[in-house]
Amino acid sequence: MKKVTIRIMPKQGVLDPQGKAVQTSLSALGFSDVKEVQTGKLIELFVEDYQNIDQRVRDMCDKLLANPVMEDYHYEVEEVART
Amino acid sequence: MKKVTIRIMPKQGVLDPQGKAVQTSLSALGFSDVKEVQTGKLIELFVEDYQNIDQRVRDMCDKLLANPVMEDYHYEVEEVART
Repeated sequence: MKKVTIRIMPKQGVLDPQGKAVQTSLSALGFSDVKEVQTGKLIELFVEDYQNIDQRVRDMCDKLLANPVMEDYHYEVEEVART
Repeated sequence: MKKVTIRIMPKQGVLDPQGKAVQTSLSALGFSDVKEVQTGKLIELFVEDYQNIDQRVRDMCDKLLANPVMEDYHYEVEEVART
């Protein structure tokens, strides 16, 4: 069994209204030293062992998980023991 | 300037309907070897240098960013150069 951790963030320069909202809320709570906030998604997949796991993960991201126009993604694959 | 990367995931055992939906959609696309999906949030903060940054980040998470009843969070702090 493999665990794939995918981090999806807005591309540089793409407007991130959720991040802006978080920054405004933090500022209202007194955390005004936070100068920039970016929000993204974290997806953990537990998959059976593949031969070509890199290609499969890229396919999943391009077809469903990420929006390649507006988002960048990075992923890590690690071996895990699960029952 | 410091960059704080916060990973927020549902606690073990908490229902994750979004993760379930992603798994169902992946399965419909032919990725039926994905056995479990967990979704979470990734937040990057760029903050001025604090003395007590660990305490401040935990305060931000507990008060706004994470729901401590249902979610676990982890964070990393790194030094970055930004203009």
